[in-house]
Amino acid sequence: MFSSALFADLYEFTMLRAYFELGMTAPATFSLFVRKLPPQRNFLIAAGLDDLLDEIEHLRFEQQQIDYLASLEFSSKPFLDWLAGFRFSGDIYAMREGAPFFENEPIIEVVAPIAEAQLIETLVLNQIGLQTILASKAARVVSAARGVSVVDFGARRAQGMDAATKGARAFYIGGVDATSNVAAGHIYGLPLAGTMAHSFVEACASETDAFRSFCDIFPDTTLLVDTYDTIEGVKKVVALAKSRGRSFKVRAVRLDSGDLDTLSRDTRRMLDDAGLTDVQIVVSGGLDEMKINELTSRGAPIDMFGVGTDMAASSDAPNLDIAYKLTEYAGEGRMKLSTGKRSLPGRKQVFRQFRDGVATKDVIARHGETLPGVPLLQPVMVSGRRVAAQSCALSQIRAYASEQLAALPPKLRALRRHERYDVAISDELARYEQETRDRLNAQGRS
Amino acid sequence: MFSSALFADLYEFTMLRAYFELGMTAPATFSLFVRKLPPQRNFLIAAGLDDLLDEIEHLRFEQQQIDYLASLEFSSKPFLDWLAGFRFSGDIYAMREGAPFFENEPIIEVVAPIAEAQLIETLVLNQIGLQTILASKAARVVSAARGVSVVDFGARRAQGMDAATKGARAFYIGGVDATSNVAAGHIYGLPLAGTMAHSFVEACASETDAFRSFCDIFPDTTLLVDTYDTIEGVKKVVALAKSRGRSFKVRAVRLDSGDLDTLSRDTRRMLDDAGLTDVQIVVSGGLDEMKINELTSRGAPIDMFGVGTDMAASSDAPNLDIAYKLTEYAGEGRMKLSTGKRSLPGRKQVFRQFRDGVATKDVIARHGETLPGVPLLQPVMVSGRRVAAQSCALSQIRAYASEQLAALPPKLRALRRHERYDVAISDELARYEQETRDRLNAQGRS
Repeated sequence: MFSSALFADLYEFTMLRAYFELGMTAPATFSLFVRKLPPQRNFLIAAGLDDLLDEIEHLRFEQQQIDYLASLEFSSKPFLDWLAGFRFSGDIYAMREGAPFFENEPIIEVVAPIAEAQLIETLVLNQIGLQTILASKAARVVSAARGVSVVDFGARRAQGMDAATKGARAFYIGGVDATSNVAAGHIYGLPLAGTMAHSFVEACASETDAFRSFCDIFPDTTLLVDTYDTIEGVKKVVALAKSRGRSFKVRAVRLDSGDLDTLSRDTRRMLDDAGLTDVQIVVSGGLDEMKINELTSRGAPIDMFGVGTDMAASSDAPNLDIAYKLTEYAGEGRMKLSTGKRSLPGRKQVFRQFRDGVATKDVIARHGETLPGVPLLQPVMVSGRRVAAQSCALSQIRAYASEQLAALPPKLRALRRHERYDVAISDELARYEQETRDRLNAQGRS
Repeated sequence: MFSSALFADLYEFTMLRAYFELGMTAPATFSLFVRKLPPQRNFLIAAGLDDLLDEIEHLRFEQQQIDYLASLEFSSKPFLDWLAGFRFSGDIYAMREGAPFFENEPIIEVVAPIAEAQLIETLVLNQIGLQTILASKAARVVSAARGVSVVDFGARRAQGMDAATKGARAFYIGGVDATSNVAAGHIYGLPLAGTMAHSFVEACASETDAFRSFCDIFPDTTLLVDTYDTIEGVKKVVALAKSRGRSFKVRAVRLDSGDLDTLSRDTRRMLDDAGLTDVQIVVSGGLDEMKINELTSRGAPIDMFGVGTDMAASSDAPNLDIAYKLTEYAGEGRMKLSTGKRSLPGRKQVFRQFRDGVATKDVIARHGETLPGVPLLQPVMVSGRRVAAQSCALSQIRAYASEQLAALPPKLRALRRHERYDVAISDELARYEQETRDRLNAQGRS
């Protein structure tokens, strides 16, 4: 595992030393939220918490890391001795993975001595940002597929191995059925999918030969038919089926180029005419939610989408305007007043209200308020230890995401930006924001 | 380190088993190239080779990985025994890291027994794709900065820890001066940069107090001045300078929000008026190459750009149309004929021609041809071992990138798409492509 103790911006360490020197050890609350949804998005899906909590629970500095920090000019011996004994001892509150959320809603709150909460800033932003953007992208792709199975083929086009592997997990949460990434299968127990590449077909003496050999070894495989010419490839599958008779068990053919709408219809017709009605059609090659939506809305006879590049890096929205902000220190609300960067002070809770099973409104409230609706932030770490009861299997997270997505107003699930979901701020929080602003000004703090 | 042996699409393993069962052990050549440049790009910069070669040289299956593969239905005992002894034994030819390259040019060629070259496909695509897209993005940002220093602040917004850390390396190759990512500093020996965040200012009793305390600990620091109001923040820095006199050593102020053009001019004037002409101005906050270009072209008095989100995931082009294709097996050229996916058969070389120190034309040729110009593909791994002479320090890679970028026709360095650089195919390669196509058809292979 990549050791994450040094995975922090340098200023986290300089600030940590300053907190250390100044004796600033009071508890702080940092809040993780997204300031603005990406242009086409009506909601996001929280993801990445489980991996993050593992990292935080095990965050330690190894001697060679301490040695490296000692080589940097900002360090001091007493500070490094303190770092060598660093453990995260704080509390973390979070929305469940799989929960849809909206602008300015805290999805994670970290309550810990300020240095501890500060040190994990870069890690929290990077890791929750990654899985959240990818789970959210996957939900769009899955929605466009209208019930047709979606498989993640993105490992090669993801931005690095961490993105590809945690991405596979996030896609699964977002409703994708399987991944081609074997490392992700191993680490997260995800279902795997995969068949053959063009290179295998090309390396064999002929395409027919390639199909025959592959079926001998893997009878229920998927055959890739577009290496030379898709229609000719399908003819060879049909011929193989005829020659094999009852021993022909091929599960599917895969089309990876060309006009997928027309080719899938031609392929279906050829397979059906040959009595191969059970042989499915997998398509791949440059797919995104818009192209998938076009194919499914026209009724192209496709049984599975393999989606790579565009989903792998969430190409239309490759990062989030995600922020991790100090909202309370030593019992007082904190906020910045910088232009265009509102942050709500203090610890908070988010209440989601439902009518007839449909989410109608969220209210961001102060921690401790009791308002109508379901409180979304729950304790997931207490005194540096994970709360076991809040940890759940990936299949449960996936089911929760699916159920919560289904409970969104249908128009929010559209692929294009719709009017906003109603997110209100409780009266008490609005008052507290004003009070904090007044206090900052009155104290001449700003 | 993330163990990369399982970082492969499932079909690599199914094909490997098929090669194993069919006794297909002849040497193959796979070629890595980008089919199409992203919309705004006139060139890309090759990066990621050094990390990739390390991964390949040390690629081994651990017992628990073999056990996992054994649990998947495609496996067989003899195949897994073979995998347990897997070592990469092939040769690799590559362009130097930092080399600019264009569409369809092989940047890496892998020559190895087909199973070995096949297994590393996902890894090669993912890792070279990652650093190449990020180094290329950085070159744009650095070019827009017109000599003003650029620092990578992107760790929090990168797609995962692998992307953030290898990204810092790639940005450095592309001309960025330092990174805020401490892990990247540790792993790659990169220069680090970083100062303070809003949270520190907010946690202190007042902004003045925050500045004073921070300077006591880090006299030559950069102070972040926009937490409450940028101009008021600068006034406090000026006041601090007055009260400290000669012991005032603050190196810079950082502006992180608002209209950076106007604010940087106002700040410069205020600092200069106070005799603080040595105090530099660092700006950050939502910058990309277009915004930087606007600031530098207007002559905003900025001494350093901190660039995060947009560079971190190369937002305008978050992935490449990068492909790793079989081009030769058992001594014969191989290619696919699928719609819109040309791949050139056989082993190759790329010659770059210069006139008066400016690159004028590239020619993609067959391996073994001798043509005018500099041959860009050089052996970097032989029989599974790295060629030491080809390994070079990051500073040399960075210098090479800078020198090669300077040798591009100036119009190619524009931020928008220009006419294409001239990339030709040698007569011999064109003939070989036609022969291969004819042979495939004549043999009825297709």
